[in-house]
Amino acid sequence: MTKKGILTVISGFSGAGKGTIVRELVDRYGYAVSISATTRDPRAGEQDGVHYFFKTKEEFEQMIADGALIEYASYVDNYYGTPKDYVMQKLEQGIDVILEIEMQGALKVKERFPEVSLIFITPPDAKVLRERLEGRGTETQDVIEKRLARAAQECAYMDQYDYIVINDDLNVCVEQIHGLIQALHWKCVNQQGQIAKMKGEFANKA
Amino acid sequence: MTKKGILTVISGFSGAGKGTIVRELVDRYGYAVSISATTRDPRAGEQDGVHYFFKTKEEFEQMIADGALIEYASYVDNYYGTPKDYVMQKLEQGIDVILEIEMQGALKVKERFPEVSLIFITPPDAKVLRERLEGRGTETQDVIEKRLARAAQECAYMDQYDYIVINDDLNVCVEQIHGLIQALHWKCVNQQGQIAKMKGEFANKA
Repeated sequence: MTKKGILTVISGFSGAGKGTIVRELVDRYGYAVSISATTRDPRAGEQDGVHYFFKTKEEFEQMIADGALIEYASYVDNYYGTPKDYVMQKLEQGIDVILEIEMQGALKVKERFPEVSLIFITPPDAKVLRERLEGRGTETQDVIEKRLARAAQECAYMDQYDYIVINDDLNVCVEQIHGLIQALHWKCVNQQGQIAKMKGEFANKA
Repeated sequence: MTKKGILTVISGFSGAGKGTIVRELVDRYGYAVSISATTRDPRAGEQDGVHYFFKTKEEFEQMIADGALIEYASYVDNYYGTPKDYVMQKLEQGIDVILEIEMQGALKVKERFPEVSLIFITPPDAKVLRERLEGRGTETQDVIEKRLARAAQECAYMDQYDYIVINDDLNVCVEQIHGLIQALHWKCVNQQGQIAKMKGEFANKA
């Protein structure tokens, strides 16, 4: 394996189970998950640097100007984004980092960092998605329909992801994604150090 | 996992251990290895359809004309190539197929079938490569120098492979390549069936 960590983006339909999967990946294998920066006020119990990096609007806009965010967006008068420093620091330490972000953000990250791998988590079929959303019992029927409509739209962009993983059984899926991320260490773009080393050694008539 | 098998090309420096690794992958996990067609005469003990598909020059040229070969080349008045039918048949049966071919052939396959994944096996460093070639005790120093010179040339094209795997410990490397090939089932290009299914279900208001 390479010594540097690699960056993977995980997205998926609402109800596909990505939140649980990412938590399991962190717990079982020590992946780091990026922490978002936001200008919204902390809620009860939220700690700076743990749940979010809390920033003023001026600080956030300075980060944008400095190119200090991997991606950002604004919702309802607040900014949300992924600070680059924290991610880079983990990668340098040899820790693989997972960014759990929605599709639009993911595609923006890929545009800016083509070497990043995008993983999309999908349930085995649309019926299962509806059942999972309804089974949660936390959302109104109206919200569920909106989420399904959004999933139907997102379908059109699945092709832009590098890997599509089917979450049929949570446990199996966590292991499969772990196996996938480990395998991604062998991607040519992540082995540039090894390639350069071999070239150098051959040039010096090993 | 998808029901169809996937096609992977494995190449590597002479002395990188790819022959042994491919044999282990077949023995441990039931991968199919493509069988080459050739116009050269069978040697003692070689069976048609097991070691090679033996063809006349006319038969081979008809296969070229029919587009029945994934790749081919001619060496010393004989043709060598990879028949498409055998590979396609295995893939349809859900069996993953490995093509163990040298770099030039591999890059030709990639050009024609961009969805194929190319894996390059390298020793940890050039010194190990020399030691392994010398340790075999089967080649003259002259042949070893030629192989090393060829490896030095091949270095320039490593970047065109999709994955670079370091063979430091044979056993570990076999498991890593198995993990990699299994993970490649999730590649977007291999999940077109799942994507089409989700699109269809959402279109029918699941």
